[in-house]
Amino acid sequence: MNAEIIAVGTELLMGQIANTNGQFLSQELANLGINVYFQTVVGDNAGRMRQALELARSRADLIVCTGGLGPTQDDLTKDVLADFLGRGMMYHEPSLRKMADFFAARGVVMVESNKRQAIMLDGSDPLANETGLAVGIALTQDGTHYMLLPGPPKEMKPMFLNYGVPWLRGVMTGEVPLVSKMLKFAGIGESALEHRLIDLIEAQTDPTIAPYAKEGEVAIRLTTRAASREDGLARIAPVETDIRGRLGEYIYADQDVTLEAKVLELLKTSGRTLAVAESCSGGLLSDMLTAVPGSSQAFLGGIVCYSNMLKHRLAGVPMEALEGPGAPGAVSEQTALLLAEGVLARTDADFAVSITGVAGPDPSEGKPVGLVYVGIAFRGEQPRAFELRTHGNRETIKLRAAKHALYRLWERLKPV
Amino acid sequence: MNAEIIAVGTELLMGQIANTNGQFLSQELANLGINVYFQTVVGDNAGRMRQALELARSRADLIVCTGGLGPTQDDLTKDVLADFLGRGMMYHEPSLRKMADFFAARGVVMVESNKRQAIMLDGSDPLANETGLAVGIALTQDGTHYMLLPGPPKEMKPMFLNYGVPWLRGVMTGEVPLVSKMLKFAGIGESALEHRLIDLIEAQTDPTIAPYAKEGEVAIRLTTRAASREDGLARIAPVETDIRGRLGEYIYADQDVTLEAKVLELLKTSGRTLAVAESCSGGLLSDMLTAVPGSSQAFLGGIVCYSNMLKHRLAGVPMEALEGPGAPGAVSEQTALLLAEGVLARTDADFAVSITGVAGPDPSEGKPVGLVYVGIAFRGEQPRAFELRTHGNRETIKLRAAKHALYRLWERLKPV
Repeated sequence: MNAEIIAVGTELLMGQIANTNGQFLSQELANLGINVYFQTVVGDNAGRMRQALELARSRADLIVCTGGLGPTQDDLTKDVLADFLGRGMMYHEPSLRKMADFFAARGVVMVESNKRQAIMLDGSDPLANETGLAVGIALTQDGTHYMLLPGPPKEMKPMFLNYGVPWLRGVMTGEVPLVSKMLKFAGIGESALEHRLIDLIEAQTDPTIAPYAKEGEVAIRLTTRAASREDGLARIAPVETDIRGRLGEYIYADQDVTLEAKVLELLKTSGRTLAVAESCSGGLLSDMLTAVPGSSQAFLGGIVCYSNMLKHRLAGVPMEALEGPGAPGAVSEQTALLLAEGVLARTDADFAVSITGVAGPDPSEGKPVGLVYVGIAFRGEQPRAFELRTHGNRETIKLRAAKHALYRLWERLKPV
Repeated sequence: MNAEIIAVGTELLMGQIANTNGQFLSQELANLGINVYFQTVVGDNAGRMRQALELARSRADLIVCTGGLGPTQDDLTKDVLADFLGRGMMYHEPSLRKMADFFAARGVVMVESNKRQAIMLDGSDPLANETGLAVGIALTQDGTHYMLLPGPPKEMKPMFLNYGVPWLRGVMTGEVPLVSKMLKFAGIGESALEHRLIDLIEAQTDPTIAPYAKEGEVAIRLTTRAASREDGLARIAPVETDIRGRLGEYIYADQDVTLEAKVLELLKTSGRTLAVAESCSGGLLSDMLTAVPGSSQAFLGGIVCYSNMLKHRLAGVPMEALEGPGAPGAVSEQTALLLAEGVLARTDADFAVSITGVAGPDPSEGKPVGLVYVGIAFRGEQPRAFELRTHGNRETIKLRAAKHALYRLWERLKPV
């Protein structure tokens, strides 16, 4: 099966946002064994949307559209597809009721235009929206499959994964399914990883070996086609064993979980708690940890000590360590250790981690952008500090600093 | 003039990277007054690239391609375009010399395939690559303009801005440029905003009125065409005045800045500092604030009090307020006030904001997912608390809670 992705939205053509939905769907469709040959972006314009649909129908088995399912006059996707396929439209009653409840619960009068979000095409299957109001739809006509998803990634992703993927599996009967396994790495960069596996990557046939890097993490996906998951995993096993032999110390998971979820899992399993002291990461590590549902069982919180004054006041770092002639300064191994110890003492957590560094754009204390220290304190042990020299813009450095802290925690927590 | 952007690269169709070039070029072309009606992504496949070129020629005045200018066998863009336009190819001698120097300086033998990067089409204009080896080209044939740019953003961006834009200005003589103005809103949702402006939106002609929403913010872009920026703004003014008359209280900026950047600007201008106490937002507000370069001038930091114990220990909220029969609990107006006051006292900031609520997925203290309280404390004033009832997944609720806190801060800080 081959697919074409059509992203609808004038904001994409104006460059106000990037088409990250195209990337997400391409990746997920590839995981299903569906090849994407074209991605198209088109504005909120009925004529041009129709033109894109016509072209896609001429060359793709599956057309996935994102965007244009909202309540406004600009949201035309369902109308255009109905017209294109010569189908009528109807309301999806459960979505209408959900919407009525939603507004009633807020004591707000529902504007009539909101109802547009509950529209389906005659004979289409609804795709539930767990994180928003617009219902998605999927249908097959004349051998071509159509799927309409909302534009906001927060709505699109769960809808596609929880409802779109099962629907696609339903229409893909007869294709030999893909079986894949993901290995996730921490503490090693993408280039170093590829370098260590280059002979395997260049000689790959079955399973295929696809390295991925995103958001400070590195992963490898091993993929084959097999009638059953067991058969597929058996074919993957020898390559996985080879990779583990070379890089096993960096593998923290054999499925697609984040490093922060893994660290929280290890903490929960051992009944331990964690607190943080964040300087240059500015709350990002806490945000990443609290993004994981159930994190409150192991993550207590901590301090964001962006200023020296708060490093002193909230974590008890002496001002003499931070400022003045001969002081190691805020960005130093010593301050990382003091922060970790300080927050450990003040929170009664079992483990504490600190991050201090230079996120840029300008150097600080005469220290270069990208220099970061991570401190790790465990109750009853000597605290340790680690230096990281990285690069990139502010956002990248914050992320790498937070991921490095998680890597150091994972290293300490992982079962030996 | 209207344009189509064709991004070439199988890695884009596999979802390994997002088409950020498409976003960048769309934005820059819009700034030049060039409408982009379509973006297309196509793999490293000569047949499908040709198909994309043919379609684009049928509907666009300008075709900008990115990617496929490198030295490998996969890099086909120049060959495909030469064949498509029936033109020969030649070497760009200065690029060849630059390449020879580049390899000589590194003491490396230049592989023959590298020369492919110096290829131009007969009769095309070279676009210099200041940050890489592949030369770009631009040409006009039968009234259609073509521009080929490299794929890596660090090469593509300077080439486009320094050489592509001047080339385009040269061929655009006579066109009336676009003038646009963005209004950014806080404290009002997308639907409510559109509802209040629906008559203007439906009757729009010149300027056009384009609403859009992303990441918890709502904006409107007003756009017209005019010979000068002054003339354009004069045509935009009456519509802007009308919108301000209806919704002025929600407009925090007339350019594309985030709410957090605006709040930090107001703090800096008044020489004030801010500290935070984050419960359900879990560090996200701090992360958003510290994403803004220079935030350390106004943002001191604060506490992430994810557990009740840390609300007590780090912000001094009495345990009796948090737990036990009759206690208001962690998610309450009273705790929001105590947190804001506590962090204000402990940090010596001028302003403090607190966020406590239920991010889900499960209710807490018998309170529903999406219930959030924001506390605001200003030195020397009575603290205030605000209730927000929102919805969505964990990530959305955290984001809306953080944006709501920023909105309440902005409301207090904005010049009257």
